[in-house]
Amino acid sequence: MSTAGQVIKCRAAVAWEAGKPLSIEEVEVAPPQKEEVRLKILFTSLCHTDVYFWEAKGQHPLFPRIYGHEAGGIVESVGEGVTDLQPGDHVLPVFTGECKECRHCKSEESNMCDLLRINTDRGTMLSDGKSRFSKDGKPIYHFLGTSTFSEYTVCHVGSVAKINPAAPLEKVCVLSCGICTGFGATVNVAKPKKGSSVAIFGLGAVGLAAAEGARVSGAARIIGVDLNPNRFEEAKKFGVNEFVNPKDHNKPVQEVIAEMTDGGVDRSVECTGSVQAMISAFECVHDGWGVAVLVGVPSKDDAFKTHPVNFLNERTLKGTFYGNYKPKSDLPGVVEMYMNKELEVDKFITHSVPFAEINKAFDLMLSGQSIRCIIRMED
Amino acid sequence: MSTAGQVIKCRAAVAWEAGKPLSIEEVEVAPPQKEEVRLKILFTSLCHTDVYFWEAKGQHPLFPRIYGHEAGGIVESVGEGVTDLQPGDHVLPVFTGECKECRHCKSEESNMCDLLRINTDRGTMLSDGKSRFSKDGKPIYHFLGTSTFSEYTVCHVGSVAKINPAAPLEKVCVLSCGICTGFGATVNVAKPKKGSSVAIFGLGAVGLAAAEGARVSGAARIIGVDLNPNRFEEAKKFGVNEFVNPKDHNKPVQEVIAEMTDGGVDRSVECTGSVQAMISAFECVHDGWGVAVLVGVPSKDDAFKTHPVNFLNERTLKGTFYGNYKPKSDLPGVVEMYMNKELEVDKFITHSVPFAEINKAFDLMLSGQSIRCIIRMED
Repeated sequence: MSTAGQVIKCRAAVAWEAGKPLSIEEVEVAPPQKEEVRLKILFTSLCHTDVYFWEAKGQHPLFPRIYGHEAGGIVESVGEGVTDLQPGDHVLPVFTGECKECRHCKSEESNMCDLLRINTDRGTMLSDGKSRFSKDGKPIYHFLGTSTFSEYTVCHVGSVAKINPAAPLEKVCVLSCGICTGFGATVNVAKPKKGSSVAIFGLGAVGLAAAEGARVSGAARIIGVDLNPNRFEEAKKFGVNEFVNPKDHNKPVQEVIAEMTDGGVDRSVECTGSVQAMISAFECVHDGWGVAVLVGVPSKDDAFKTHPVNFLNERTLKGTFYGNYKPKSDLPGVVEMYMNKELEVDKFITHSVPFAEINKAFDLMLSGQSIRCIIRMED
Repeated sequence: MSTAGQVIKCRAAVAWEAGKPLSIEEVEVAPPQKEEVRLKILFTSLCHTDVYFWEAKGQHPLFPRIYGHEAGGIVESVGEGVTDLQPGDHVLPVFTGECKECRHCKSEESNMCDLLRINTDRGTMLSDGKSRFSKDGKPIYHFLGTSTFSEYTVCHVGSVAKINPAAPLEKVCVLSCGICTGFGATVNVAKPKKGSSVAIFGLGAVGLAAAEGARVSGAARIIGVDLNPNRFEEAKKFGVNEFVNPKDHNKPVQEVIAEMTDGGVDRSVECTGSVQAMISAFECVHDGWGVAVLVGVPSKDDAFKTHPVNFLNERTLKGTFYGNYKPKSDLPGVVEMYMNKELEVDKFITHSVPFAEINKAFDLMLSGQSIRCIIRMED
């Protein structure tokens, strides 16, 4: 029997307050409105951004809320005006969108859609400012327009990418956020040449994905930079073949890297968000052709500071958001890269838990044990 | 009668001390040694860099010295090992070179030759550390490997570009430095698209050349930014069609430009060297796709400072040196652009004086009256 047009009752992991374990509850999910789709989530994974906003340190707290934004699912029903998706389509919901109408969507160079650009403060749908989730008649806030820690969720159609139905959702769900962010930073923005050298600052999931991008691009030297020496062993699987721990040296890490590479690396990708790492990542690229790419999100009051001659000596500094991928247009192609065995995704997935044990995924991330932990919604 | 292999006596404008008028003297010019060529200079023009080092404020002073680095001439004779130039070739000497052997020369992306990169401190030839100029047996220092304020000069072959002999040297001599620096910054580095918006900071010769690059690229809006309102009238000839004087506004000029352009310009080129202008030039480009290019040379202790989110919102900041042109490989093509009437050069030349009146060229530049003043060596 079709559930289209009906309120669906299902399980969701509700965050009632900051930093407290999520609680699996029965919630009601309203039907999708104009330009919205309702998805059945099959697999979701936990990303640092979920944890960051769940901890609500510094940002405006918004509770109760359903987190989750890396996921794979199937379209259950579509709202008015939706023409490019239909029930049964396999999809990845994305924390940022593509309206296809604004200057950003029309620009080849940008993926920062004016309408659907990431908004961490908004907890409701764009069309009517209301939530589609409720429990006992009281609304529960959305998160990043995705809220995938629920068996069913409602998204704006512009934030949902249709992918190859043959792709295993329990794997490609991780392409929804972190992996694409790091991988795209390298392949779409840094663009290292075959045989070149690349430094990756920060060997978490995003940094490892950036390294994977360097590996796929044929970089000869992939230098991982991290304060945690334990990360090097794992990073080798992602193509990292040299390691620098800034703590092991008395001089700035950019000088260490310049000495290792006869003047600097060809490309660098910064995935920590530390402003000092950003400066190092910029200053460690070679003059004449070096390109540094910033991915990590800094604190509000940070200042990037360098001598302008570092630019004049023909270095380039760029930032990227979601690896410069346009979610609807480009994500299907990334999934195909996985299907063609160019991009390796399985090695990012270190753990898997049933939905009822979702809090274990938080523990694994907070203790630094997991790269990605898949949450199986149907188990 | 050939002068090859002989010492040539000729006139040169010698700077005996910092900031004092040049003195036209008879000097001796030794024959070119290995990998060197001796040029007969026909036309030279005055650039701010000559004036800056002649004033010797801040840098290490080196006197007596023969300045001059924007020029056109003819090869008089060549030293041992020179195969790509011969007597009679029409050439432009350049303040930076191209050895064709180093990593920079072999990189498609760089023009910062390891061997022949600009060196403002060196006053002698690379091969033997000696000067080819002397008077009464005492050496006179070279400047930038060019020293074109002399009827004859000796240069490393890697710093001499062979050009179309049909090109009028009294015009194309200005392509030797400033015009290529600004023009290349736009067409080679900023690369504005047809119909786009470009902000140019600083409307001196380099900034006007950057504007000319925007005009040639088909930019629709070319916004000139300068503290001197008198420069706007002249700048119109170079395609500048809007003008902003930061002094006319109570808010930072980047905010003024963002308001004028619905969020920022597509490209900006900074040609003043003021670090505050660099920050404004970066922050005035549109998120998602904006590219800012730094050309102006800053002071030694300046710090470029911005919030890293300005990068993360997909802005790019690059610096360039000599418009990213490789002197020997690329300059002939720029001369052809002039010959094909794509690039307009004549409008940069506002004055012309005979060699004997070279100090007048300094006065015209110091009083801000000239863009380029040609010095006619044979008059």
